[in-house]
Amino acid sequence: MQTISFTRRLRRTHVSQGVEAASVKAYSVYNRMLLPTRFISLEEDYRHLKEAVQVWDVASQRQVEIKGPGAADLMQRLTPRDLSGMRVGRCYYVPVVDENGGMLNDPVAIKLSEDRFWLSLADSDLLLWVKGIVFGLGLEVDVFEPDVSPLSIQGPRAEELVSRVFGEEIRALAFFGFEYFSFAGTQFLIARSGWSKQGGFEIYVVGNDNGMILWKAFFDSGADLDVRAGCPNLIERIESGLLSYGSDMTLDNTPFECGLDRFCHPEKVIDCIGREALLREREAGPKRKICPVEIDGDIPVCDRAWPMHSGRDLVGQVTSAAKSPDFGTNVAIAMLDRGFWEAGRELRVETSTGILSGRVVDKFWN
Amino acid sequence: MQTISFTRRLRRTHVSQGVEAASVKAYSVYNRMLLPTRFISLEEDYRHLKEAVQVWDVASQRQVEIKGPGAADLMQRLTPRDLSGMRVGRCYYVPVVDENGGMLNDPVAIKLSEDRFWLSLADSDLLLWVKGIVFGLGLEVDVFEPDVSPLSIQGPRAEELVSRVFGEEIRALAFFGFEYFSFAGTQFLIARSGWSKQGGFEIYVVGNDNGMILWKAFFDSGADLDVRAGCPNLIERIESGLLSYGSDMTLDNTPFECGLDRFCHPEKVIDCIGREALLREREAGPKRKICPVEIDGDIPVCDRAWPMHSGRDLVGQVTSAAKSPDFGTNVAIAMLDRGFWEAGRELRVETSTGILSGRVVDKFWN
Repeated sequence: MQTISFTRRLRRTHVSQGVEAASVKAYSVYNRMLLPTRFISLEEDYRHLKEAVQVWDVASQRQVEIKGPGAADLMQRLTPRDLSGMRVGRCYYVPVVDENGGMLNDPVAIKLSEDRFWLSLADSDLLLWVKGIVFGLGLEVDVFEPDVSPLSIQGPRAEELVSRVFGEEIRALAFFGFEYFSFAGTQFLIARSGWSKQGGFEIYVVGNDNGMILWKAFFDSGADLDVRAGCPNLIERIESGLLSYGSDMTLDNTPFECGLDRFCHPEKVIDCIGREALLREREAGPKRKICPVEIDGDIPVCDRAWPMHSGRDLVGQVTSAAKSPDFGTNVAIAMLDRGFWEAGRELRVETSTGILSGRVVDKFWN
Repeated sequence: MQTISFTRRLRRTHVSQGVEAASVKAYSVYNRMLLPTRFISLEEDYRHLKEAVQVWDVASQRQVEIKGPGAADLMQRLTPRDLSGMRVGRCYYVPVVDENGGMLNDPVAIKLSEDRFWLSLADSDLLLWVKGIVFGLGLEVDVFEPDVSPLSIQGPRAEELVSRVFGEEIRALAFFGFEYFSFAGTQFLIARSGWSKQGGFEIYVVGNDNGMILWKAFFDSGADLDVRAGCPNLIERIESGLLSYGSDMTLDNTPFECGLDRFCHPEKVIDCIGREALLREREAGPKRKICPVEIDGDIPVCDRAWPMHSGRDLVGQVTSAAKSPDFGTNVAIAMLDRGFWEAGRELRVETSTGILSGRVVDKFWN
């Protein structure tokens, strides 16, 4: 168990103080910022997330703001998802790809106004890609990281907790909708979204001072709801089929390989970056694809890709895995070659501590 | 003391196996890859680095390869450093800035041939900036992360150790020179460079299999030299004035603010990105600048910027600090407003555990 060395380079967040007071036990680093990963134990945190409500420091979902007369056009160039109907008040999961169709990030995009957008990032410096494109094409847009840090409230009691702080109107907010709600005289942009399937909200907190005010408000209001500090949970997110950029997909993968077909419309979006490559791949079909996989036996921590074999052939790799208490198996996400996608297909998984049997299942668990 | 959560997203390196066998105690994450930060203790590692020789896993200094007919022109656009005399066989420290002159990275560049270059990165996804520029400008170059992982040998006995493995010819290599040397039938690009001032070499190891072969060769050859696994050392690098991108400088800083004037020639380089902004700043002079600072008393871990005050005025911030056994003070790097740069200037430092006195010193320690 190695500790993490703290330096300014691994940025603290607007609510690090609250996270520390809640005795955070482990961190990851996400977008060069601290991301809590464990408070009690992976299993305890998981159980609690599924039964109660947690406040998550996800400030590391850094934002890219795109602003100016050319902002809407640029947004559509950045993603093969058809944004022609994009409207204020809705969240959009948008694969962002390079000229070869390789995944650069899979942010959630929101339109703040006709010429202003935020991209809520997964773990890559997408800001630099967008800045490079804007410079190279000479576009009239400003691109920068605004001082915005998401705070996420997740779990079956999230609606109850958030309504106590922001009012009953929050209950009418649709999934992937966003609106402004007020607390203590300040307006907050709140979306019904978040990186779990237990239900919840993400609050896009502007500035450094409001985070702890909200943090305290949630803990003061939710004692009877058993509100706790929490974080994205490895087990729950694999059960739910929530992909992690950098783990389950990289620049080497296309949206089709990631199963993101429904967010990918190169035939309609005539000027998106990577269009030709994506059209070719749609025609030919992807060579490999993300599949849910179960693994038998005792697995180690999945800290690297585990090769998967069928007979003597290397046919793919496991990219995330965890032991699931609720489903009584090891749940996993794998990238598998074409021909090995059907449910029930038996494969061997070469973990870092030995070979285990596993098989493709028909869907994610949650 | 929080632990780090391992996932595939925090990439292991070609020599993680050796690092683990050497009982690494702490990690940082650098370019989304594991970077060891402590083996025995910060002070013990420091003492040993200054007296013997260490093998460092710095695979997290990821490379960007730029290749093709337009590669040399692109290299010169990317940096305000005059590269007109750039030649094969030399290393070049090159600030890379955006259109506003803001620092994007401060890599070491090497020219492999007339149309092929590597940039050995500090901690930002510079690959995405370069890819964006290339796409936007429609340049004829390939830009990608090659399968290259630096292994660094640092310390006063580095030359002796490296010569035992690669031969006596290594001794003739000049500082910031590079050449190819052979071991066990494989050619390795080796530079006399590295992120300490104790002397040493960086080996640009191609592929995943040669790392552990070299690792073992160094430990087999160097037992009498007290060779150990090591890593960049916070104390030593501050004493030496080696800046850390993300800690001591960010996109908000220019090369002039970072004291990199001698690597910045906007007057000569007519088509570098950020030229206008840099010319204006050179004319006006930077508003703030990096200065070496000493701090009295007991300092906590510098995990965030510490504000610095003169009287009531906020005049800058400490960005890195450590207690130096050899210099009997807390050595620190600060970014200070103009008017507060002269040695001897007394300032107050607002650390996370209290206010301490400190002062500007005339130069870095080492």
